[in-house]
Amino acid sequence: MKARIEIRFRPGVLDPEAVAIAKALAHLGFEGVRGVTRAKVIELELAAGDAATARREAERMCEALLANPVIESWQIEILEQA
Amino acid sequence: MKARIEIRFRPGVLDPEAVAIAKALAHLGFEGVRGVTRAKVIELELAAGDAATARREAERMCEALLANPVIESWQIEILEQA
Repeated sequence: MKARIEIRFRPGVLDPEAVAIAKALAHLGFEGVRGVTRAKVIELELAAGDAATARREAERMCEALLANPVIESWQIEILEQA
Repeated sequence: MKARIEIRFRPGVLDPEAVAIAKALAHLGFEGVRGVTRAKVIELELAAGDAATARREAERMCEALLANPVIESWQIEILEQA
């Protein structure tokens, strides 16, 4: 079972790296960049036998380690293997 | 026009942060994690008037700044605004 987790800053949290990317793109001559947002993806290969268990485990992993619940939110997608 | 870019290491490139995540999860008692893969997402709000231009610009930004073509590959998705 594969869990795909996408983690991003909650609205209103400043992302200095996104700001730096926007500045660097402008500096390189890329005009017309009106906004930059970043997210991180973590894909887990899980031994869990069913999707509900995999989702529950991934949720606990986000809370415990993968994300910072104070400033980040996440979405979990469970992909069952072929 | 919104460009969503997903950047990940090419197959065979070691990702030390993914290894660290796997170890930390095991240390926290999460069993059954058989693999960890990371990717980064960069979403750009672009002034480009059409999808083909937006994709071409995003491609050039990946080559010039956003990714390291030697060790990373990327996928670009263009989302037209409602």
